[in-house]
Amino acid sequence: MPNAFVTKKTVLEPIGVIPREAQATASLRSAIESGAFETQLPSENELCQQLGVSRSTVRAAVQSLIEQGLVTKQRGSRTLVNMRVSQLKLPLNAGIGFWDLISQAGHQPSTKNEVVLEREASADIAENLECEPGTPVKVISRLFCADGEPAIYLEDMFLSSLLKKAPKLDSLPTSIYDFAEANLVSPIGYTIAELIPMASNAFTVEKLSLPAGTPLLHLIERHFQANDHPVVASYVWVVDEYVRFSVYGRKRREGVT
Amino acid sequence: MPNAFVTKKTVLEPIGVIPREAQATASLRSAIESGAFETQLPSENELCQQLGVSRSTVRAAVQSLIEQGLVTKQRGSRTLVNMRVSQLKLPLNAGIGFWDLISQAGHQPSTKNEVVLEREASADIAENLECEPGTPVKVISRLFCADGEPAIYLEDMFLSSLLKKAPKLDSLPTSIYDFAEANLVSPIGYTIAELIPMASNAFTVEKLSLPAGTPLLHLIERHFQANDHPVVASYVWVVDEYVRFSVYGRKRREGVT
Repeated sequence: MPNAFVTKKTVLEPIGVIPREAQATASLRSAIESGAFETQLPSENELCQQLGVSRSTVRAAVQSLIEQGLVTKQRGSRTLVNMRVSQLKLPLNAGIGFWDLISQAGHQPSTKNEVVLEREASADIAENLECEPGTPVKVISRLFCADGEPAIYLEDMFLSSLLKKAPKLDSLPTSIYDFAEANLVSPIGYTIAELIPMASNAFTVEKLSLPAGTPLLHLIERHFQANDHPVVASYVWVVDEYVRFSVYGRKRREGVT
Repeated sequence: MPNAFVTKKTVLEPIGVIPREAQATASLRSAIESGAFETQLPSENELCQQLGVSRSTVRAAVQSLIEQGLVTKQRGSRTLVNMRVSQLKLPLNAGIGFWDLISQAGHQPSTKNEVVLEREASADIAENLECEPGTPVKVISRLFCADGEPAIYLEDMFLSSLLKKAPKLDSLPTSIYDFAEANLVSPIGYTIAELIPMASNAFTVEKLSLPAGTPLLHLIERHFQANDHPVVASYVWVVDEYVRFSVYGRKRREGVT
């Protein structure tokens, strides 16, 4: 039987271009998620060799993985793989689109009732997009189903002026991240979501075909450019029966005295 | 008027002991949150000097801050501070106790009805704590109030065998992280929370003095040791009026081809 601490060789793609840290992190994450390391990462030296990067880059990449909870550094030099986190279903804070989340939850995703229209920003939307009320805003609304049943209704809103080209209904990407990348002048760097429990009202009864009073998780998501400006605001209503989000949180134990 | 890009000197405490990356990260975060850098971090060289650590440690620390969304690396060498994220209220994924979260939301926190008792683990609790059903489990239940009004009811559960000493009701730490550190054989390394919308039922009507049917956010939190074993399971019911959580999520754009 193979020793659980022996790692397979050549599982990591060498890194070619900048930014090296991010690529090293991605290469390591992908190897962890595929189970290549089983219980612990190879030594720093071995990682430098496999990835073809400096020790400094390897340390930065491992620090990223620690922040993401995928590995834990032990006293001494071992870096242990955390399978609970690397196999977490439905992580709300990992920047994954709803289509993929529904699929990860073990359901067959599909979309329905997709509509693209233009509105003038209400006071509420204007605040989320940081524009003047009345500014032209595009709204893409759609229903995500799980195994054919309504699971998530959402409205993605963005300034019409951010569009590089008119979105085509028959080839809308399923993830707002991919949509922004393909159609808007700026991609999405990060998201801040507010979590609001609610009882299904007339609006969601219509959109999700649910009995009034059914508990729903309402998310107000603001998607920002990497450093600052809002790109897209999403109003989302989620049926708990099909999609229940998890959040990974890390206790900050940085030990400053 | 001072140039926004000029940073104050000596805002960072030099780092003394291992693990250097984590301490450098903490020192930088604390300086960012206090507004010391305004819009961007000092250069790597300057950070090495102020923190008294190697370039490799500085790079690892900055990579941590990038993962946490506190800074963004621009093409070239600038590392910009993201004030939206560093001043985010009520982050669910930052490992902060409910007392501090209520306070951050602008309310005066207090606790009531604290009870410590012992139970035998139900099938449900046994699954969360990874023990046999019937194993002795300690339960600490309490009500957190915001400005004197019921805001969060919670039950923290852990194996009685994990206790180093009997907890004293009159000096219970307000955060489960502090409690575990002081009273249990192992501190909490990270948390995975499930987010469940619900309508107030007979149980929560009694515990939170709320009308039946009021929407609540129910969290099932599992707190783990740094690398693996469950330490504490918490069942939490949150009133949206006082405490509305946010989650920061980062789009993974690691650019691997």
